Amino acid sequence: MKEPGRSDIAEAYRSIQSEICERIESADGKGQFSTENWEHHGGGGGTTRIMQQGAILEKAGVNFSGVEGVLTKEMAEGIGADVSPFFATGVSIVMHPHNPHVPIIHMNIRYFETTEGTYWFGGGIDLTPHYVNPDQARFFHESVKKVCDRFDKAYYPKFKKWADDYFYNSHRSETRGVGGIFYDRLTAGEEHSKSDILEFSLAIGRLFHEVYSELIALNHGKPFTEAERQWQLIRRGRYVEFNLVYDRGTRFGLFGNGRVESILMSLPALAAWEYNHIPEKGSPEAATLAMLRKGVDWVSIGK
Amino acid sequence: MKEPGRSDIAEAYRSIQSEICERIESADGKGQFSTENWEHHGGGGGTTRIMQQGAILEKAGVNFSGVEGVLTKEMAEGIGADVSPFFATGVSIVMHPHNPHVPIIHMNIRYFETTEGTYWFGGGIDLTPHYVNPDQARFFHESVKKVCDRFDKAYYPKFKKWADDYFYNSHRSETRGVGGIFYDRLTAGEEHSKSDILEFSLAIGRLFHEVYSELIALNHGKPFTEAERQWQLIRRGRYVEFNLVYDRGTRFGLFGNGRVESILMSLPALAAWEYNHIPEKGSPEAATLAMLRKGVDWVSIGK
Repeated sequence: MKEPGRSDIAEAYRSIQSEICERIESADGKGQFSTENWEHHGGGGGTTRIMQQGAILEKAGVNFSGVEGVLTKEMAEGIGADVSPFFATGVSIVMHPHNPHVPIIHMNIRYFETTEGTYWFGGGIDLTPHYVNPDQARFFHESVKKVCDRFDKAYYPKFKKWADDYFYNSHRSETRGVGGIFYDRLTAGEEHSKSDILEFSLAIGRLFHEVYSELIALNHGKPFTEAERQWQLIRRGRYVEFNLVYDRGTRFGLFGNGRVESILMSLPALAAWEYNHIPEKGSPEAATLAMLRKGVDWVSIGK
Repeated sequence: MKEPGRSDIAEAYRSIQSEICERIESADGKGQFSTENWEHHGGGGGTTRIMQQGAILEKAGVNFSGVEGVLTKEMAEGIGADVSPFFATGVSIVMHPHNPHVPIIHMNIRYFETTEGTYWFGGGIDLTPHYVNPDQARFFHESVKKVCDRFDKAYYPKFKKWADDYFYNSHRSETRGVGGIFYDRLTAGEEHSKSDILEFSLAIGRLFHEVYSELIALNHGKPFTEAERQWQLIRRGRYVEFNLVYDRGTRFGLFGNGRVESILMSLPALAAWEYNHIPEKGSPEAATLAMLRKGVDWVSIGK
């Protein structure tokens, strides 16, 4: 079988974007994704789809891009590649719900190649509950693990640890949320063909709407207080800190003259910073903070 | 006359902190600064003073620090110094008002020395109006220029340009606000003694409360709409972007294991991100955006 080329991969990713938007509109029940097509200065372009003020989702972005460019020295160093023309395609998603009992979710699948013939896949999916619910964190990790295991039993443990290390606000010694998986530089080898790796990333893309629709259904009807809303805004502040201080995709995009509004769609509609906010001992907020640690074995939690 | 040593400078900066907090409490009329003393892991410490939910100021931070440490390789490269033990003292201020017609303001004065005997002063003051008022921007720049001119006629033009270049959200091609001055690496030479430079920084510190009290008095009684409040929250979002993506002091602090809550006191109580927000043509918001450019000659504007 012929291995997929860049346009096959871009097409498959574009389809995943449409599929996800349809499913999420149906889960939200009211909000619609706007559609903006844009061009990249170096070649190619993308489609940014945004829902603002849906019934359940306060702000949700599903971005597809397939762009060409030339790596600057700074960008090349950042990703450990040579300075050369490149092609990159991917789907990137962040969703911020109204209700603090519905978690924030992020998913990204991407493919990168240089004209030198180097290529790799990267991506991940991770969950950021404002209130950690161990049963739902386990459900999320079990679902992710199931997809990983179908492709390679080694994936989940390796990529789960990678997510713990990556989605980490080191200045606060806090993980961003309950993690998930993060992978990078996956390329064909003895065990997996290029097609296999593409299929793995598409499976992660499809998992996204299944698992998030379920998490919405479980939580969106729960009542919440003003204090819980304020805690949500503070947790969103931490999300902003991670994305602007550390996130490689964000910084790569901003410094590489990417389309700012598509890159920063990940930022919430509203976020708060209170000086030295420390949750009350024994509160659900304190319990959440205590669980934002690396190395938690979420698939076994509560079992 | 004996030149000031590190403890003289730290003492003078600590006094400026107290003076500023007193004057700003009086300008606010209701809010009080809390006081938190903290220690630095490497030696020394600081005092962080915060006002939250004052009558006029929604969140204001006035931080003093006088800390010892050892530059990591990363930190040393970031500031172009050698890896060595250092002492750093300074006052750093950011104030976010409730009323969108009152500008955000930032001031910083700092002194840095290594055990190798190298030292320098740095600092600046800059204004970030949510709505640019050219008369008030001129008043601000004239006031800053007057202080600079007392010490050196070359300071204002040089440091004004430096602020334009420094307080710049390059991913948006927008200045953070109407600028002011930014300076770094000021050290004694033929023209200025160490005492002179210290005096210059103290004069900037005193200018801060005079000029900001005036800007509060001019604007805090103006009525504002929900739409103007939302615009303020969006402008605050840009402020967050600058501080987390570019600001050297913030990143130096976060990566150098500084006290997170004192570093991030600069972030507003609340900030917003709307996807692809473009102000209406001819609106005051569009007029403001058009003025957020480098190289505006604010001391002559409207004259």
